[in-house]
Amino acid sequence: MIIVMAQKAKTDQIKAVMARLEESGLSIHASKGEERTIIGAIGSKTRMNEMTVESLPGVEKVVPILEPYKLASRSFKDEDTIISVRNLKIGDNAVQVMAGPCAVESREQLLTVARLVKEAGATVLRGGAFKPRTSPYSFQGMEEEGLKLLAEARTLTGLPFVTEVMDTSNLSLVAQYADILQIGARNMQNFFLLREVAKTGKPILLKRSPSATVEEWLLAAEYILAGGNPNVILCERGIITFENYVRNTLDLTVVPVLKHLTHLPVIVDPSHAIGKWRFVKPMARAAVAAGADGLLIEVHPDPARALCDGPQSLNPDNFNLTMAEINSSASAMGRKVGCE
Amino acid sequence: MIIVMAQKAKTDQIKAVMARLEESGLSIHASKGEERTIIGAIGSKTRMNEMTVESLPGVEKVVPILEPYKLASRSFKDEDTIISVRNLKIGDNAVQVMAGPCAVESREQLLTVARLVKEAGATVLRGGAFKPRTSPYSFQGMEEEGLKLLAEARTLTGLPFVTEVMDTSNLSLVAQYADILQIGARNMQNFFLLREVAKTGKPILLKRSPSATVEEWLLAAEYILAGGNPNVILCERGIITFENYVRNTLDLTVVPVLKHLTHLPVIVDPSHAIGKWRFVKPMARAAVAAGADGLLIEVHPDPARALCDGPQSLNPDNFNLTMAEINSSASAMGRKVGCE
Amino acid sequence: MIIVMAQKAKTDQIKAVMARLEESGLSIHASKGEERTIIGAIGSKTRMNEMTVESLPGVEKVVPILEPYKLASRSFKDEDTIISVRNLKIGDNAVQVMAGPCAVESREQLLTVARLVKEAGATVLRGGAFKPRTSPYSFQGMEEEGLKLLAEARTLTGLPFVTEVMDTSNLSLVAQYADILQIGARNMQNFFLLREVAKTGKPILLKRSPSATVEEWLLAAEYILAGGNPNVILCERGIITFENYVRNTLDLTVVPVLKHLTHLPVIVDPSHAIGKWRFVKPMARAAVAAGADGLLIEVHPDPARALCDGPQSLNPDNFNLTMAEINSSASAMGRKVGCE
Amino acid sequence: MIIVMAQKAKTDQIKAVMARLEESGLSIHASKGEERTIIGAIGSKTRMNEMTVESLPGVEKVVPILEPYKLASRSFKDEDTIISVRNLKIGDNAVQVMAGPCAVESREQLLTVARLVKEAGATVLRGGAFKPRTSPYSFQGMEEEGLKLLAEARTLTGLPFVTEVMDTSNLSLVAQYADILQIGARNMQNFFLLREVAKTGKPILLKRSPSATVEEWLLAAEYILAGGNPNVILCERGIITFENYVRNTLDLTVVPVLKHLTHLPVIVDPSHAIGKWRFVKPMARAAVAAGADGLLIEVHPDPARALCDGPQSLNPDNFNLTMAEINSSASAMGRKVGCE
Repeated sequence: MIIVMAQKAKTDQIKAVMARLEESGLSIHASKGEERTIIGAIGSKTRMNEMTVESLPGVEKVVPILEPYKLASRSFKDEDTIISVRNLKIGDNAVQVMAGPCAVESREQLLTVARLVKEAGATVLRGGAFKPRTSPYSFQGMEEEGLKLLAEARTLTGLPFVTEVMDTSNLSLVAQYADILQIGARNMQNFFLLREVAKTGKPILLKRSPSATVEEWLLAAEYILAGGNPNVILCERGIITFENYVRNTLDLTVVPVLKHLTHLPVIVDPSHAIGKWRFVKPMARAAVAAGADGLLIEVHPDPARALCDGPQSLNPDNFNLTMAEINSSASAMGRKVGCE
Repeated sequence: MIIVMAQKAKTDQIKAVMARLEESGLSIHASKGEERTIIGAIGSKTRMNEMTVESLPGVEKVVPILEPYKLASRSFKDEDTIISVRNLKIGDNAVQVMAGPCAVESREQLLTVARLVKEAGATVLRGGAFKPRTSPYSFQGMEEEGLKLLAEARTLTGLPFVTEVMDTSNLSLVAQYADILQIGARNMQNFFLLREVAKTGKPILLKRSPSATVEEWLLAAEYILAGGNPNVILCERGIITFENYVRNTLDLTVVPVLKHLTHLPVIVDPSHAIGKWRFVKPMARAAVAAGADGLLIEVHPDPARALCDGPQSLNPDNFNLTMAEINSSASAMGRKVGCE
Repeated sequence: MIIVMAQKAKTDQIKAVMARLEESGLSIHASKGEERTIIGAIGSKTRMNEMTVESLPGVEKVVPILEPYKLASRSFKDEDTIISVRNLKIGDNAVQVMAGPCAVESREQLLTVARLVKEAGATVLRGGAFKPRTSPYSFQGMEEEGLKLLAEARTLTGLPFVTEVMDTSNLSLVAQYADILQIGARNMQNFFLLREVAKTGKPILLKRSPSATVEEWLLAAEYILAGGNPNVILCERGIITFENYVRNTLDLTVVPVLKHLTHLPVIVDPSHAIGKWRFVKPMARAAVAAGADGLLIEVHPDPARALCDGPQSLNPDNFNLTMAEINSSASAMGRKVGCE
Repeated sequence: MIIVMAQKAKTDQIKAVMARLEESGLSIHASKGEERTIIGAIGSKTRMNEMTVESLPGVEKVVPILEPYKLASRSFKDEDTIISVRNLKIGDNAVQVMAGPCAVESREQLLTVARLVKEAGATVLRGGAFKPRTSPYSFQGMEEEGLKLLAEARTLTGLPFVTEVMDTSNLSLVAQYADILQIGARNMQNFFLLREVAKTGKPILLKRSPSATVEEWLLAAEYILAGGNPNVILCERGIITFENYVRNTLDLTVVPVLKHLTHLPVIVDPSHAIGKWRFVKPMARAAVAAGADGLLIEVHPDPARALCDGPQSLNPDNFNLTMAEINSSASAMGRKVGCE
C-alpha cells in the first residue's frame, strides 16, 4: 500500500505513521517529494489494515496496490478452472446454455419448457422454486414442490438443473435436489449464505450484484473459495446505471476483464440484465463473442401468462432463433455449444 | 397503468390486449392518437400484471402509474409514524443521535464509547456484533459475546441499543438482546430476512441498499409492514455513483422525498456514506437541516486502531464538536436532540 | 402525456388542470380511480408543455408517453438510413472499420499508421487535429497542420477520414478537409455546435456523451436532422457507472436498442470506452455480434510513446489480430468488412 | 506515480520501464515484493506521461498519487479565494443567494421577478438569455434582447446578474453585459470555451457537469485559472445516478470535500439538481448547513406558465419561505446572507 501524507504533515506525524507500519511487520520506504512525503509499505497485510492507517494524523489518503482477493486471482492460480456438472464441463472451450423459466409455475409448464429447451440444444435447465421478489405482493415460488418438479424434468430430459437458494434456512433442502446452486444478485454479499453454500461443495453460480464492482464480486467468490469450495461460476447479469430504457446495463466488457483477473468460468444472463425479450438474441450472440463460457436465458411457453419476468422471457420460437445465433457465434470462434 | 401500442400494431393485437385487460377485471379506455393507440387501465392490480402485458404482441411498452407499495405510502396513512424505543420517540419532532463503534471489539472499548457518547448527548448506542465484511479475511464480529456487552453498556448508560441482524439463523438471538434491529444495506432485499424480522414486532432500522431506488426501498419496508410490524425506521447511508472521492454519495434529497411519499421516520448515516471522518460533521449538520429524524454516527476511542471502519469513525473530540453542531442545526429549526 | 393528480387534489384543481390542457389544444380523458384521478392528454405537444403542467396545484406527476424526438425515430422513417462517404456506404449490411491514432502527432506517425490500417483492412482513417483534453497541461493537438496531414494520408491511401470539430470557431476549417465530422462525447449537448455542423451537410459522427440516456442522445441527433442534415452516424463509446476497473462501461445493448428506435447507423468505439488496449479485441468482436454498423479503433505505431491515449491504442500486431476477429465475427452473420 | 508490474513481468521488462522513467527525469524506487515488483516514481510529471507508461510491456497498472490540478489546489494556495462582484464578496463567510427565472421570457416577467427576489433578500439576479435545451423544439432564449433586459433589471434593483454563455461566438456579447459568466453543466468540458472565458477576467460560475468527478471539475477550473483568471466560483447542481424520482442527485458532500481540496468558493443549485420545486426549500437549508458559500435558485412569478423549467421554479410565496429558512440556517452557523 501507498500512504500519501498531507502537505502540511509534520515530521512527528510522518514518523508515527512509519513506526505504526513497522510495528505491523511491513517493510517500508519513504520518498520525500517537493510537495509531499509518500510512504510505500510492502508485506502480506490485508485491506483492513490499509484502511486503519488512514485514520492516523497527517495522512491524506491510503492507496491499496494489490488486489485484496487471493484464491480467486490468476496470480494465485494461472490455469482456467473447469467445473464438472454431471457430464458437462463449464469453463472449457465449449459454450453452455442454461435455459428455462424464471419460476417453476406448474408441472405442465415446467415439463413443456424442459423438453423444448433440451430439443433446441440447451445443456442445463434453469427454474426458480424460491423467488426473491421486489414486492411482497408478487408470486413467491412453489418452494419444495418446485424442486421436485425440477428433479422430474431432469429425469425426463437428462439436463442437470440450476436453481436459486435464498437463505441458510432452506439451503439443505435446495442442495438435496439441485446440480448447481444459484446465489442471486441480491444475495451476492450475504456473507452468511456464502459461507454456508461453500460447505456443500456443489457448483455455485454466483450472480453479480447489480451494484458490485469487479473487486467486490471477486471478494464474494473468495468467501466460497476460502470456505473450501473451488466450484464457483461467475454470472454477469447487468449493473445499475443512469440509463433506463432497458432494466440494467449488461456489462460485457467484464467478460474479458474477468478472464484476465481470475481463473473462474464466466457466464452471462442477458434476460435479467435487459428485461425486454426483443434484445436478448443479439446480446446472447455478443456475449459469446466477448468470450463467455455460457449463457443463462429465460424461456417460457407463453410469456404473456408468466407469473414472473414475462417481458424478458423468450417464447419457444424466439429461443430456437437465439440458439441458432449462439451456435453460429460460437462456431466463428472455433467453439461449440455443449461438449467440446 | 398505461399500455403504449407499437405504431404498427394491428387492430387484432389492440383488441387482444384490451380483451386481456378486461379479463383481468380492469376498467379500460383506449385513445387512438395520430401515431399510436394508447390504452389506460384502472383497477387494483399489482405490478406483476403490468409487466406481463408487456409480452403481448404489438405492445411497445407499459407505463405504471401508481406506486406499487401501499402500507408504506402517505396515501394510505397520512399522519407520521412515531416509534417508541424505551422512553424515546423516533419520528416526532426531536432529533435522535445513535452513536457508537462500527464493531464491538472488547468490553473496555465498548464501555468507554458508550459512556462518552452518552455524555456527549447521544440517545441510542450502536455497535455491531455480527459484521458483514466485504472480504472473508476481515474481522467478522464478536457475535453473542458482543450482544452481551451491548446489554451491559445499556445497563450502565441507560441508552437503548441498535445492532445488525445478518441472517435468519441468528435472528432470535439478536432479538433477545437488541432494542432496535438493524437490517444492513446489503440485506435490504433479503426478503426471507425481512419477513422474519417483521414477526419480532421490534423496531426495525432498514438501511437503504446503496443501489436501491426510493421505490425499491419502500417495497422492502412494505415486506415488514405487510408482515404486521409497523415499526420501520428508514436509514439513508449513501448510494453508489461514478463519484469516487468519498465512498458513496450521501443522498440527502431523499429525506424530504421520503417525507412526501411515506409516513415512516427517516434517519441518516453520514459515516458509512462518506467513509472519511473529516466530512462527517458538516454532513450531520446538513442532514438535520434537510429534515432527518435522526443520525447514525460511528465513534471510536482510537480510530487508528479500530478493527473496522476506522477511517470514518469520529474520535471523542470530533464527536463532541459534531454534537454541538447537530444541536445548533436542530435549534435553528425549532427542534431538540433527545426528547421534545 | 398522463397527468397523475395528487390523492388529495381538490375538484377545482382537477378542473383547472383539464381547462389548461384543453386551452393548449389537447384532447383529454379523465379517469377517476379509487385513489386518484388520472388525466390522459393527446395531441402534438412538445415535452416542454408536459413539464409545465407539473407546476399546477394538485398535480403529483406528469408521465410523458411518446418519445420527444421525431425525425430520428423509426416511427417517422422506417427504412435504415445509409450514408455515403466517398465510395463507402455506412449503415448498409457491411461493417466499416475506422482506425487510426487518437491524435495526429507528426507526418511520419500519421502516414505510418494510415498505411498500416489500410493494409489491415480498415475503411476509414481517424485522427484528431483538435483535441479536447481533461487537463490544460496535456497535448492539445496539431490543429490545421494536423488536418493537412490527414488529407495527405487520404491521398496516399484512398481512405476517407473522420476528425473531431470542437468549436464553431474552427468548424469551417475542419469541414474544408474532413470527410466525416466528429462531434466528441463532451460536445454531444453543445447545441450551438450541433446547429452549425448541421449546416455543412457533411456526415456527422455523433458520439454519445458518457452520461447521456438514449433519449438525450437521439434528441442531440434531432438537432442535426432538424437542421436539414440527414447524415448522422451514432457512436457508442461507453457510459459512466460506478464500475472503475476500466474507464467507462461499454453499453453494447444500446446497439439493438437503437436499431429498434431509430433508422440511423450505429457504430461502436471500444477503445475510448474501455481505455485499456488488452480488452479492445474481444469487445470489437462483440460489437459486431451485437449488430453494429462499424467500429472506431485507436491504433498507434508505438503506443508507449503516444502523446494521447496510449494505454488504449492497439499496436500494429494487435490491430491485425483484431481485424481478423472482426472479419470472422462479421462472416458469422453473413456480413463483410468494407463493401457489401 | 506507482507502477505495478504484472506478476509474470520479466526482468527485462522491469528494467525497460525503469529506464523509461529515468529518461523522463523521474526519480525512482523499485520494491520487489513476494508477488510483484512495484516502482515508485517522483517528479513533476503530468498525468499524460503516467498514462503512457501503462502501455509498456509487463506493466499491470499505473496508480497516480498526486492530484493532476495545481492552481486550483489548497496545496498551491491555502487561503480561501474571495471574489468581488460589484459590492459583494463571494467566498467570505457570508451566504450569497442568486435567484431569478430559468429564462428571460419578457420585460414584464423579468422585472417582476427581479423586484421580488431583491425584496426577499437575494443578492444576485440570475436569468438565461441563451438557453441550452435538450430538445431542438424547446424555447431557445431571447438572446441579446434578454441581456438588455437583465441589464435594465440590474439598474432597477442594484443586483448584479449572472447569465450563461454557451459558445465562443456569443462570448464577447454576453461579457459586455453580465457581471458573472456562467458556464453551464453541459459545457464544463468545452475546453475552447473555458480558454476563451478565462481571457475576459470576469468572475466565472463553473457548473459541475452532472457526470464529472471532483477531479474532472477541478481540472476544468484549472483551464480558467491557467488562462490567468483567478475568479472561479464552483457550482454543484446534481449528478446523474440510477435514482430517478428526482432529476439528479444533489451531491452536498462535495461542499466540504471541495473546501478541503481547493480554495475556490462553492455554491449550490438545488433547483436544477432536483427538478421539483417542493424539495428546493429543505435542500437550500441543507446546502447552507453543509457550508456552501451561496445558492442559485429558480424563481418564476407563475411557474405553470414558464417557458422553461417550470416544475422546479419557486413561486414568490415559496421563495419568501425559502429565504427565511436560508437565513435561519445561516444564523445557526454565525453567518449572514449578503454582506458579512
